[in-house]
Amino acid sequence: MVRARSEERRAVIVRAALEVIAERGYRGATLAAVAERVGLTQQGLLHYFPTKEALLVAVLEERDHWDTSGGGGREGWRLDLVESLVEYNAMRPGIVQTFSALLGESVTEGHPAREFFTERYAQVRAHMAEVLRLEFGERLPGGLTPERAAPLLTAVMDGLQYQWLLDPSAVDMPGAFRDFVRLLYGGEDPS
Amino acid sequence: MVRARSEERRAVIVRAALEVIAERGYRGATLAAVAERVGLTQQGLLHYFPTKEALLVAVLEERDHWDTSGGGGREGWRLDLVESLVEYNAMRPGIVQTFSALLGESVTEGHPAREFFTERYAQVRAHMAEVLRLEFGERLPGGLTPERAAPLLTAVMDGLQYQWLLDPSAVDMPGAFRDFVRLLYGGEDPS
Repeated sequence: MVRARSEERRAVIVRAALEVIAERGYRGATLAAVAERVGLTQQGLLHYFPTKEALLVAVLEERDHWDTSGGGGREGWRLDLVESLVEYNAMRPGIVQTFSALLGESVTEGHPAREFFTERYAQVRAHMAEVLRLEFGERLPGGLTPERAAPLLTAVMDGLQYQWLLDPSAVDMPGAFRDFVRLLYGGEDPS
Repeated sequence: MVRARSEERRAVIVRAALEVIAERGYRGATLAAVAERVGLTQQGLLHYFPTKEALLVAVLEERDHWDTSGGGGREGWRLDLVESLVEYNAMRPGIVQTFSALLGESVTEGHPAREFFTERYAQVRAHMAEVLRLEFGERLPGGLTPERAAPLLTAVMDGLQYQWLLDPSAVDMPGAFRDFVRLLYGGEDPS
């Protein structure tokens, strides 16, 4: 019972953090701002999340959970669902900015989010390989296996986010991602 | 004469910073460590570079300058030279880590490196479009124009760096980039 209440409280905090991120971006999402939103002291918040990084990782995990739980979980995802995810991301710059900023920090020595991103990438690459296998079988039109195309698909998603965050008017993120999917099809229009 | 000496001194500092980055990574490259290397006090260093970010931007600008000044400048670059650059990057994790960490920070509100990266991306996309035009003409085998393929090429380079920095044993960065180039060729082996 105590445990259940604690998990409930954590979920409420994560939800509040997501709202603060959407409104104020990565820098504005301070522990103080999140604590105020849920009616806790900052000290009280630290009981649930000892650092800003720990809270942001929890927010990103929750986003991943929601993003992949439509359509019967991660199994059976199709490539056009990944395209829709990129379109959706283009409408939520706050969380994309948080993901991109924390990913950048995570490559530095001993960063608390390093393990999260390392494991997440292993999972995302495996998941994307399954998406590609479902779409193309064991070989893509260009000759790559799903396992070799998966890191490229993942890299394009992440790399485009930086270009788009820095200059949204210069980079059509969903359009560029669709261009990449067309490349995977060997240039044929998949529709 | 005074100006020339000041520029010389800046160049010496940037070179020292690159060495410190290579040895100690992004976090280890403190202003204090760089000042010590060039025999300045930290206060003396601040005269040339007021912040760590300003110094790191200068290092990245200098790297870009060197990377693109082989082979008669940016004009006439071929796609296999870009492949070589990715191979070269795989041998210098310190500077790639610095680039990736600073890029991550730069997407946050009011970051001092934001302008640098925004302008750099505009230049890199334009440059990559020229590389692609030289290679393929006005249409790539998959049907994309050079201008539409350029953000993808750039995104793959940057996105792969994050995956590789987090888990070098899981991601063959130069190999994956060559896979992408093969995709641009419509799956044909370009060699």
